[in-house]
Amino acid sequence: MSNQSEIQNQNSEIVETTFYVRFAETDLMGIVHHSQYVVWMEEGRSDLMRRKGFTFDQWERVGIGFAVSELNLRYHAPARYGERVTVRTHVESLRSRQIVFAYEIINADSQQALVTGTVKLIAVDKQNQVRTIPPEVQRLLAASG
Amino acid sequence: MSNQSEIQNQNSEIVETTFYVRFAETDLMGIVHHSQYVVWMEEGRSDLMRRKGFTFDQWERVGIGFAVSELNLRYHAPARYGERVTVRTHVESLRSRQIVFAYEIINADSQQALVTGTVKLIAVDKQNQVRTIPPEVQRLLAASG
Amino acid sequence: MSNQSEIQNQNSEIVETTFYVRFAETDLMGIVHHSQYVVWMEEGRSDLMRRKGFTFDQWERVGIGFAVSELNLRYHAPARYGERVTVRTHVESLRSRQIVFAYEIINADSQQALVTGTVKLIAVDKQNQVRTIPPEVQRLLAASG
Amino acid sequence: MSNQSEIQNQNSEIVETTFYVRFAETDLMGIVHHSQYVVWMEEGRSDLMRRKGFTFDQWERVGIGFAVSELNLRYHAPARYGERVTVRTHVESLRSRQIVFAYEIINADSQQALVTGTVKLIAVDKQNQVRTIPPEVQRLLAASG
Repeated sequence: MSNQSEIQNQNSEIVETTFYVRFAETDLMGIVHHSQYVVWMEEGRSDLMRRKGFTFDQWERVGIGFAVSELNLRYHAPARYGERVTVRTHVESLRSRQIVFAYEIINADSQQALVTGTVKLIAVDKQNQVRTIPPEVQRLLAASG
Repeated sequence: MSNQSEIQNQNSEIVETTFYVRFAETDLMGIVHHSQYVVWMEEGRSDLMRRKGFTFDQWERVGIGFAVSELNLRYHAPARYGERVTVRTHVESLRSRQIVFAYEIINADSQQALVTGTVKLIAVDKQNQVRTIPPEVQRLLAASG
Repeated sequence: MSNQSEIQNQNSEIVETTFYVRFAETDLMGIVHHSQYVVWMEEGRSDLMRRKGFTFDQWERVGIGFAVSELNLRYHAPARYGERVTVRTHVESLRSRQIVFAYEIINADSQQALVTGTVKLIAVDKQNQVRTIPPEVQRLLAASG
Repeated sequence: MSNQSEIQNQNSEIVETTFYVRFAETDLMGIVHHSQYVVWMEEGRSDLMRRKGFTFDQWERVGIGFAVSELNLRYHAPARYGERVTVRTHVESLRSRQIVFAYEIINADSQQALVTGTVKLIAVDKQNQVRTIPPEVQRLLAASG
């Protein structure tokens, strides 16, 4: 990506969110269903924004949201019921209209890598039209770099 | 319930909706997770409304929705991945502001009863205020009696 | 219920489990989907057992699990994304082969009641046959009375 | 990939699976939650196998399953409640121990592309050890080429 406005955040702050695997998140293989990690990744970025003091009310106020554009996951080992997992979330890159979050989901106790992945989000308004990420949100996300 | 306006629909038309159990709907017990039947019951009433020609656009037009007020399920036998299930939905009672749907979820092949249940819904507007069910919706639901 | 062996636990210890509503748990009404509370109730009893030191490995060792037999929920007010909720779980009654958990789900900040409910569970072995709850599990659950 | 044993199936049979969007699959953006497409993709490959006469019992008999190794999705337009979607599934490549399914999820009525993606699966035994895909399963999957 050659876009000059891009901010590479490879050394950015990593936010860690830890919780227990829920029974309902498992499947008949006895492990966490592979779609569930997508939900955990989303919870990771919710947590990152919350810790920066950016609550849902503020999303309403700035009038934009983020639409998921791309999703990529690599599965290394399964999580299981009874385990605690940690979602490690950071801003991988930030451009005027899009943001990429990178993730590492690990077993909170053994530190074993379970899933790695990225999600690309595009800023959109209520009519689902692409918009520039508002400056205050840009600053907040860049500040994690 | 002594409310004169109530319509008892015990002999009402039963709408049957049949589909395969999805892998993601199972849990580590090897059976369908007990929360999943709640989703299937909702799909049963969506299907009932669709077959009456009442689509989501029309919900928007009449300006009301239904908020779930009560939910009761009895679990008789588990559904499993690879099986086809049928959700049998009918209107159990209809009052000016609420409706009760009754359900029987069966194995589509063996006809074994899996889950029985009811859900009570209250008509609400966009501000979540209780409203009278619009006459056209009442007629449509009563017509299943 | 006249069963002499029943232990009424109406004054039993209440375990509180608090977490943030996840974005994925909402629906197009803008509120938490009504099936999601069933998952939260399950997480409440998982947490209760964990706090008593009873982990998933121990379920494997005692060789029984609990099959959901009945589920009853009353919806008072909706939870929304961005809110923290608390699931208050306690053992309502305990018999030789079944246990009833009672729940109150509240907004963790305003303390507003969102959902109340009960779930009845039956002890079963790996072949899904009804079994007596093992003494060590009975003691542990009764100890919350 | 230069592996000689790989079978490129770019012109392979495409299996189409069509169903209505469920209300529970939406989120507060009013659209289908992005994790849900992962579940639909899995249902697509379940349907492909079912149509080839390979049922869950037969998975048990051959003693292997498939563990998800990689997942990649591109989101083009959102699905909404009330719409019918079609999941178009085909075998993109088949090697001795892994298979890649490719997907196009479209609006069943307008034919608009909603999501495209791939999933890579690795054959594993009950101990989660990598195994060769049994010949009868290989033949069945290759026959779609």
